Amino acid sequence: MILTKPILQLWMMFALSTAWSGDLRGTGDLGIVVERARGSLLLIETTRNAAIGTIEGLGDLSHASAVFSRDGRYAYVFGRDGGLSRVDLLEQKVVNRVVQAGNSIGGAISQDGRLVAVANYEPGGVRVFDASTLAPVADIPATYGEGRTSKVVGLVDAPGNRFVFSLWDAGEIWVIDVKDPAVPSVRKFRNIGQQPYDALITPDGRYYLAGLFGEEGLALLDLWDLDKGVKRVLPDYGKGQEKLPVYKMPHFEGFAVAGDRAYVPAVGRNQVLVLSLRDWSEVGRIDVHGQPVFVIAQPGGRQVWVNFAFPENHKVQVIDTQSLQVAHTLEPGKGVLHMEFEPRGEEVWVSVRDEDRVRVYDTATLAQKAELSADKPSGIFLTARAHRIGF
Amino acid sequence: MILTKPILQLWMMFALSTAWSGDLRGTGDLGIVVERARGSLLLIETTRNAAIGTIEGLGDLSHASAVFSRDGRYAYVFGRDGGLSRVDLLEQKVVNRVVQAGNSIGGAISQDGRLVAVANYEPGGVRVFDASTLAPVADIPATYGEGRTSKVVGLVDAPGNRFVFSLWDAGEIWVIDVKDPAVPSVRKFRNIGQQPYDALITPDGRYYLAGLFGEEGLALLDLWDLDKGVKRVLPDYGKGQEKLPVYKMPHFEGFAVAGDRAYVPAVGRNQVLVLSLRDWSEVGRIDVHGQPVFVIAQPGGRQVWVNFAFPENHKVQVIDTQSLQVAHTLEPGKGVLHMEFEPRGEEVWVSVRDEDRVRVYDTATLAQKAELSADKPSGIFLTARAHRIGF
Repeated sequence: MILTKPILQLWMMFALSTAWSGDLRGTGDLGIVVERARGSLLLIETTRNAAIGTIEGLGDLSHASAVFSRDGRYAYVFGRDGGLSRVDLLEQKVVNRVVQAGNSIGGAISQDGRLVAVANYEPGGVRVFDASTLAPVADIPATYGEGRTSKVVGLVDAPGNRFVFSLWDAGEIWVIDVKDPAVPSVRKFRNIGQQPYDALITPDGRYYLAGLFGEEGLALLDLWDLDKGVKRVLPDYGKGQEKLPVYKMPHFEGFAVAGDRAYVPAVGRNQVLVLSLRDWSEVGRIDVHGQPVFVIAQPGGRQVWVNFAFPENHKVQVIDTQSLQVAHTLEPGKGVLHMEFEPRGEEVWVSVRDEDRVRVYDTATLAQKAELSADKPSGIFLTARAHRIGF
Repeated sequence: MILTKPILQLWMMFALSTAWSGDLRGTGDLGIVVERARGSLLLIETTRNAAIGTIEGLGDLSHASAVFSRDGRYAYVFGRDGGLSRVDLLEQKVVNRVVQAGNSIGGAISQDGRLVAVANYEPGGVRVFDASTLAPVADIPATYGEGRTSKVVGLVDAPGNRFVFSLWDAGEIWVIDVKDPAVPSVRKFRNIGQQPYDALITPDGRYYLAGLFGEEGLALLDLWDLDKGVKRVLPDYGKGQEKLPVYKMPHFEGFAVAGDRAYVPAVGRNQVLVLSLRDWSEVGRIDVHGQPVFVIAQPGGRQVWVNFAFPENHKVQVIDTQSLQVAHTLEPGKGVLHMEFEPRGEEVWVSVRDEDRVRVYDTATLAQKAELSADKPSGIFLTARAHRIGF
């Protein structure tokens, strides 16, 4: 067959169409691993425990995080440099990117999946974008006092198409309702405590808890009843600061709830605290090998996995939530930065920065099931997060 | 351009390739509605609240249910006629189908997504299939006594790649471990009570509860500690049978857990029972308009939605879990058969058989957001179930 010009044109259309459309596949078993130094994402698939691609061009990904569209096809990646990128996991490319602030610290996607919000340090506030286009929808400067603006931290989505966040400089918690996105309503809670540095929402979407750097305790807001206001709970929380140097402030993402207990990292102490969800009292402390960074419950809550700050950051410990004791200690290697459970809890992915490895463990046997190469991996995010509140 | 034969061939390849591959899209916002009379599925998408296709050829779909592959692309549909169909939601067609028994009653997919199990009445037992190929992997006849076999009910998946089910005729609960699928290990619990008719597993995957037709109470098995054996809880449960005619045995799927309470349909009474998850005691009863069939918690647990047996099957009631009272009554129309929440709880889909309609409600405002035509719709199943235990 002679390749005449019209035939060549058809071949090109054919070739482009297949390249453009990629492989038809489900998105429920996909995820991304942040390669922080290179500013890229490793695209992973949990069914075969395999890396299936690399996506470049995401800017500064130190301290990056991600959320997912409700169909699981797109990741929204929040970079430290204020970049917000919309990434098509099927076509394996960045399809939209805005640098929406000078310095930002994570974001969230609304309950209905229509809006993406970013928490900014500089300029301090929250910006809200259309999830389909990244067109700006609302700008909420975190103003307080006499025309000052505050860094924003601990931004989460909440039921009722709301976002909740904390103002580091102002000591406030704000709840914004974006049912009418162009005119968000803001409810401010003042004097919630000094320097909230991070926050979380319980898996049921009901309670927002902010950690306080400047004083003891946690600030608690019941999102089912805002009129009750912010209360202080766990009054001794954070008292460890003076006792031991704090190598790394613990993260609150992945607040571990199992049964009617919550597990939180102690600040500056080699302990995980156990709280009662009934009254937020401390009901136990579990000694661990180092200062905990992430304390994450296995889906179902039978295990809680913990990683640590330097110099114990080569270890992971597994707490049994029935005995409240450390049941296992693993050594995935130097620089364990993050852990992500598969949604039904049978396996957990662990990033090991200094070994350029991601390891997958069987949570029942603790055997390593797979090992993947990744360039300085940090955060691991699976698309199943699309279906959960507060992620 | 003259369409010579080679050019036509290329066009056909092009056209076939696009038709074959369908549209590239995520699978996280897909779902199916069972059209019971026609034996078809309506393919739905929750982002636009739209019907996007119909899939035919599934046999007898009365009392049908479905589970999903871990990537969200495939539905496994369990028909009453023993048919097990693997349906590709992207290509909108049945890709594999086996009639594996004469009469079956639902199924489950293993925690790792590799195996699908079906509960059979005739021949009584459980059959396990490879999720990719539907090739038979294991056959577990529900034998008891002197060579008799029992109908199987209440089949669920459980953590640790296990399946749990109940034997109606034998009064037993079996736990099968399929880590080595060809040689499943079976643990049998005998004398658990007369005629278990349905069962459920709590959302954390820990407790299996079977309802008993032949006597009062529920049979409870702690899957974290099988050695404790089966206990009887809620000793008065089911005592309503003699008081009022039972129009329809309540379903246990979608056992409603909110906070540390569970909500279960009373048998033969116009009530929803409230249980404490701490000790399985009854802590309240909520009067409702009819005999409850499905009692389902909104993700997050703020609301519990209830539908009813005839003659109240045109209504849905919404319980507020803080006040423990009915907060709203909706009238979607005659023959409300099922309800399915979107995974983050902002909307709920309701099938209304006698009006050939599926209605979508906003859970915050209770406004109807969309209305779709469907032929005698019954069960509604969204792909987000792929990421949860016990569905």
